[in-house]
Formats: sequence, structure tokens, C-alpha cells
Amino acid sequence: MLIRPLTAGDRAMIAEMLETCGGFNREEISVALEVFDEGIASGRPDDYALFGAAEQGRLQGYICVGLVPLTESSWDMYWLCIHPAARRLGVGRALVAHAEGHVMRHGGRRLAAQTSGRPDYAPVRAFYAALGYEVMGRIPDYFRDGDDGVFYCRVLVPTAPRRPPPGALSRPRPGA
Amino acid sequence: MLIRPLTAGDRAMIAEMLETCGGFNREEISVALEVFDEGIASGRPDDYALFGAAEQGRLQGYICVGLVPLTESSWDMYWLCIHPAARRLGVGRALVAHAEGHVMRHGGRRLAAQTSGRPDYAPVRAFYAALGYEVMGRIPDYFRDGDDGVFYCRVLVPTAPRRPPPGALSRPRPGA
Repeated sequence: MLIRPLTAGDRAMIAEMLETCGGFNREEISVALEVFDEGIASGRPDDYALFGAAEQGRLQGYICVGLVPLTESSWDMYWLCIHPAARRLGVGRALVAHAEGHVMRHGGRRLAAQTSGRPDYAPVRAFYAALGYEVMGRIPDYFRDGDDGVFYCRVLVPTAPRRPPPGALSRPRPGA
Repeated sequence: MLIRPLTAGDRAMIAEMLETCGGFNREEISVALEVFDEGIASGRPDDYALFGAAEQGRLQGYICVGLVPLTESSWDMYWLCIHPAARRLGVGRALVAHAEGHVMRHGGRRLAAQTSGRPDYAPVRAFYAALGYEVMGRIPDYFRDGDDGVFYCRVLVPTAPRRPPPGALSRPRPGA
């Protein structure tokens, strides 16, 4: 699986994926494509950064993250979509990990995500929980009646760079 | 005090208020004016609706609310600014009440607001609490280190229309 930045040429495949994945209504698909267009047009790394996961040239999912305006280092996961044929293959997990790396490389320290509290979204909530995202709040009926908003956030801790074991630098080299 | 929709002609006074109120940094002022411009340009009642409180023709504060995209009836308070000379005169309270009425008239059922967890923002948090806004979540260091995000929401319940006291309709009228 290759994870790469999306380009304008991916639009048709993204539109098809949003249609077939079954998780989004007409308005959501239209907003997702607006966000895609803005991200591609902007080209700024903190403004709707878009990454896709491809297998043999075919997109299996994509993610969109961006810096939350007026925050110094809080990013939001604006969109995450996995092709139905590619579910349970670790595509979502790989996309989130890649996006988290991007966020950290650009100074981000936390990544927020929101999803629905509906029973059919239990797998999505379990997915975020498994990746270390914590529920920071919940608003009843946020999206519509019976459809709560559940708000997640994860503090991103950069992996320590590989360094020589303690003492390695002062240890005499063989033959020294 | 008159509360009225803002117009393009209010821009200079809004800019001056944002500068002098002391609560906003350069980036925040610039975003506030962008939002003002978008709201004026859009003219849609659910897209950055802007209201100002005026006393003898002079603006004392303004509020900006809008429908949260992809929700059916959740609105967000995007901006609330009170002129320093008009503090503690009920201007903020009147603006919020007016905005809540606007939200309800356009089908909104809840209004969210966010503010800082910093100690100097305690009066702002007390203000929201006094108006019936509940804390739905808090994210440490959300805006920047040491500056938490505190997320409020209030469920808006339309005031019941005035109706005759129970039994009034079936009580025989005098002389009947």
C-alpha cells in the first residue's frame, strides 16, 4: 500500500469512493468535494492536507486534515473515507498514522476528530479509541435528532529520533 | 439599545472595536474581519449572521452566528465582541438573546460557543454559564500551550406562545 498526497487527477476516484462507501449523504459528499477542491487549490501543508492510500494504482481510501484556524498546534481530521472493498485491511489505520506524521512534521501537537454517536457508528468510535483518541465531549442531537456529536482528540507525541545507546559516543572504537 | 443586522458600512467600526477591545490578537482580528466580509457578502440567514448593538448610532458590540455545516440544527457562535466602554451594561447578554432568537426562527435547536480556559477568561466563562451554556468538553492546550479550549452548548427552547389560562376557552363568557 502506497500513501501519497492526492492531486487534482484523483477527484473522480474520490467522488466515486464517497458515493459507494455508503456513509455519506448528498450534502456530505458535496462538502467533501468542496474541501477536496480547496485543499488541492491551496497547496499549503496546513490547509486541508489530503492523502490517499493506493494499491496497484487504485485508491482505497483518503484522509483530509488541517490546522484549526486560530490555534497554534491543534489540527482537525476533516474527512476519512475507506472504499467498502478495502475495509478491515488496515487502510484507515495507515492513513491516520500518515496524517499524524504530517501534522507533527508541521508543528501540530494534537489531532481532533468528530463522529456520530449513532449505534451504526460504533465501529468508527471503536476505531478512534483503538488509535488512542479520547472522547473530549459529546453533544446530544448535534447532527440531527438522535444523532449525537462525539468529539475526539489525541495528543501527538513525536517518536524519539533513533540515537546511539547511552555511552556509545564516548566508548572507545575498536582499535582506537 | 438597538440590535440590528450589520451592514457593509459597519466594517470600520467593527475593525476599531476588535482593535480596542484588547481580547484579540492580530490573526484573530484578521479572521474576524474575513468572517464579517463573508457574512455580509453571503446574506444567507444561516451563514455568518451578524448583529450589532447600537446606542445613539454608535456600535457597542456585535455577534456572529451560523449554522454548523452538515448539522441540521446546531449553530455556532463564531464571534462576540463588546466595546470596552460598554462592558457590564448587558450588551453581551442582549446580543446573545437576539442571536438565539434568530437561530430559533431559522430552525436552530442549539447554539455552541467556545472560549479559552485561561484564568483571564474567567469572566467570559461565567458569562456563558450565567446564560445557561453548559460545558460539553475541554481540550487541554487547544489554542496554544497553557490555553485550553472550553466548549459550550445551550439547547434552545422556544418560549411558549402566550395562551389563555387553562379553561379560559370553555368558561362561559359573562352574559353568555
